[in-house]
Amino acid sequence: MTFRYPNGKLYQPKKISTTPHLKQQVYSNRGMTLEEDLNESNKYYLEKQIAVIHKKPTPIQIVNVDFPKRSAAVIKEAYFKQASTTDYNGIYKGRYIDFEAKETRNKTALPLQNFHQHQIDHMRAVVEQQGICFVILRFAAVDEIYLLEAVHLLQFWERQLQGGRKSIAKNEIEALGHIISIGMAPRIDYVKVIDKLYYQ
Amino acid sequence: MTFRYPNGKLYQPKKISTTPHLKQQVYSNRGMTLEEDLNESNKYYLEKQIAVIHKKPTPIQIVNVDFPKRSAAVIKEAYFKQASTTDYNGIYKGRYIDFEAKETRNKTALPLQNFHQHQIDHMRAVVEQQGICFVILRFAAVDEIYLLEAVHLLQFWERQLQGGRKSIAKNEIEALGHIISIGMAPRIDYVKVIDKLYYQ
Repeated sequence: MTFRYPNGKLYQPKKISTTPHLKQQVYSNRGMTLEEDLNESNKYYLEKQIAVIHKKPTPIQIVNVDFPKRSAAVIKEAYFKQASTTDYNGIYKGRYIDFEAKETRNKTALPLQNFHQHQIDHMRAVVEQQGICFVILRFAAVDEIYLLEAVHLLQFWERQLQGGRKSIAKNEIEALGHIISIGMAPRIDYVKVIDKLYYQ
Repeated sequence: MTFRYPNGKLYQPKKISTTPHLKQQVYSNRGMTLEEDLNESNKYYLEKQIAVIHKKPTPIQIVNVDFPKRSAAVIKEAYFKQASTTDYNGIYKGRYIDFEAKETRNKTALPLQNFHQHQIDHMRAVVEQQGICFVILRFAAVDEIYLLEAVHLLQFWERQLQGGRKSIAKNEIEALGHIISIGMAPRIDYVKVIDKLYYQ
């Protein structure tokens, strides 16, 4: 519906960033990364006693540490190591939760090179132990976030190994995954999806 | 019982490290830390598809990273951060497992200063989420290892806050905890204790 001023000029509503329908835009302009949003969400879950989920520290190979007198040890030489597991894990209602988060600027697919064999092996082991395991994927160009259960990722990984495509098409993620709407608190309410999938 | 040679000299049996009754001594002489033994045990559980439990990386605050051409990024300045959670977590039979490992040279007690408030808060939150949460304690002087469930640790922590003793007496740990015998594979079979406590 459009409105015009008496002079015939088109009425343009001001975009006020706090109105609910503009939430998506607010989010995009914040400059927050997926990791920051997940950390905020996990902090919210912890404070509200909903779930206990943390990001694991980045694995570092320490080579040289200096111990100056009267002050804290300083790491003078260290290297980033490849993680042998996923980045996030914890507990929700007694169940083990485990996931990896990935962002892509690609508009039509998530390249599988975002994962490495160690992570895939870890996810397979968690699934076999009946853990709740998934990936949270953000398509940055459209600011859409999906939860895709690990069983599907493992199948796409398998397809690649058998000569298939080296990515997951966005429409496959739309079909098999679960979109997570972006909110304020928590920002990425993935526990809501877990509830729907495992507790209803 | 002692034996003497015909010349009256005392017979000293050779200590052969592979004989079963000397296992305890072998262990002590290996120079392995509790952490190394737990990592080995977790590796065993993973390979045998018994459980998926990992030690979390040490949290580091990175201040300065150098990116030399054609080689890996080098961390030039970083500091150790205090962990906000326990060191180990993972999954066993669908359930969330979470624990901290501590060693002491003290023969009669475990000083509570081995823990810090963040870890206690984390353990309380995990217990409230119905996780399987405990500490693995090693008395180095006698090479005894115990699993003590977090509920007990939380009570001893509370006792301290109310002006009580600042440690857990070894006999309290013996009474409330579960001794873990030291084996070869896995070296510290704490899953056996979990089985006894939660699955029988």
